[in-house]
Amino acid sequence: MAHKGTTHNKAFQDTAQAAQNCQSVCVQSIQHCLEMGGSHVEPSHMQLLQDCAEICETTATMLLRSSLQHNQVTAACATICELCAQSCDRFAGDPQMKACADECRHCAAACQQLVQQQPGGAAGTGHHGTP
Amino acid sequence: MAHKGTTHNKAFQDTAQAAQNCQSVCVQSIQHCLEMGGSHVEPSHMQLLQDCAEICETTATMLLRSSLQHNQVTAACATICELCAQSCDRFAGDPQMKACADECRHCAAACQQLVQQQPGGAAGTGHHGTP
Amino acid sequence: MAHKGTTHNKAFQDTAQAAQNCQSVCVQSIQHCLEMGGSHVEPSHMQLLQDCAEICETTATMLLRSSLQHNQVTAACATICELCAQSCDRFAGDPQMKACADECRHCAAACQQLVQQQPGGAAGTGHHGTP
Amino acid sequence: MAHKGTTHNKAFQDTAQAAQNCQSVCVQSIQHCLEMGGSHVEPSHMQLLQDCAEICETTATMLLRSSLQHNQVTAACATICELCAQSCDRFAGDPQMKACADECRHCAAACQQLVQQQPGGAAGTGHHGTP
Repeated sequence: MAHKGTTHNKAFQDTAQAAQNCQSVCVQSIQHCLEMGGSHVEPSHMQLLQDCAEICETTATMLLRSSLQHNQVTAACATICELCAQSCDRFAGDPQMKACADECRHCAAACQQLVQQQPGGAAGTGHHGTP
Repeated sequence: MAHKGTTHNKAFQDTAQAAQNCQSVCVQSIQHCLEMGGSHVEPSHMQLLQDCAEICETTATMLLRSSLQHNQVTAACATICELCAQSCDRFAGDPQMKACADECRHCAAACQQLVQQQPGGAAGTGHHGTP
Repeated sequence: MAHKGTTHNKAFQDTAQAAQNCQSVCVQSIQHCLEMGGSHVEPSHMQLLQDCAEICETTATMLLRSSLQHNQVTAACATICELCAQSCDRFAGDPQMKACADECRHCAAACQQLVQQQPGGAAGTGHHGTP
Repeated sequence: MAHKGTTHNKAFQDTAQAAQNCQSVCVQSIQHCLEMGGSHVEPSHMQLLQDCAEICETTATMLLRSSLQHNQVTAACATICELCAQSCDRFAGDPQMKACADECRHCAAACQQLVQQQPGGAAGTGHHGTP
């Protein structure tokens, strides 16, 4: 694809990859938590894993198509990834939860960086404001 | 499902329904635009239709599971729906684009209202702030 | 949208609606099962609810764009919906599981009927065979 | 995640990765085709790219959660990937279409192999037959 800005494109693709990796580990983590049972299947924890998988998927797809409207979505993705990481942190000694927290934080950082690179890009404001 | 707040739940379900309706009409509109060709397949217009379909799907799913983290996503959905409606407005006399703009605006309004009902719920801020 | 076959289109839209309804009730049921705990969160049951929600979403989207390639997907959707309904049947006296089983069976029937209407449309065969 | 069969798991993860790669290139290809215009935006070609992206996403997610019900979906994914590859083949000399065809064929082969490994796994039959 011939995009005008190569640097722009590289940041988009790297963040899309981070979001896809995060989605994958969240989907696997949901299955892991169901197999573990107990506190692993607390509704709030499982809800965050599902929310995180879905917003990561949407973010990845928008970035892969170089969407001009990605900014608020990317910012929301950063927030949810960070909350999901914190929820995973509570399961000390569980390698799947550790791996999930790591991917969530990696994705959150990539999203946050992309949001700050946008013109007027404070998280959640968007550079294509609704009138 | 036994949810604590029935009113809360009703607003969530109505907005989820609006988002699903918006997603559906966007998916149909993409096909319509491809069949029409010409200015209907301008990249910026088609990108918005795709973005709108996807963020509506994510928003609907989060609301259906009564997600505590829906706020920034719902706000992003409102923004993208409004931009998509504006893009559809340019095709005067095309009933599919008119129907799409109407559903987008209906969804944007429902999302905006839900965001404003949240504690501390200014659009994009989120009531579960990342530290 | 000006489609050639109105009848064709009507069956597609009705089945898409059934699939979206089924997706919605599955997403709500996942949350319900997490809140219930116990046998409601058995991995096999929860896996089916997730699989069913996702294949219904894909089926709905393909039908909404009148996809020529929907046949194997629609057949897979019918299979998974029926298995999900059977899994929900085990929770006698739970209205959410009852509602979920009902929507799954409604969607399975709609999908099955659509598959049988296709030229050469035995389930899983597809009318656009891979070479 | 403690899965019983490591080999089983490896094939699932490799196929999930192939499906995610295929989804990504299809999403990028849709944007590329919109930017190219002309025969690149023929409805049948664009429909296949969208169908392929979506069934790949569903397949990847089902495999990532080691779904017992993946078989018909994986078979459908193989069919649609092959059809999408054939549609991309028509654009000789276009590197994005070439890359897309390659990823589609890689995913189709991985899916086909996984389907044949299942007990009773002829494509489209499924090893968990609906009664």
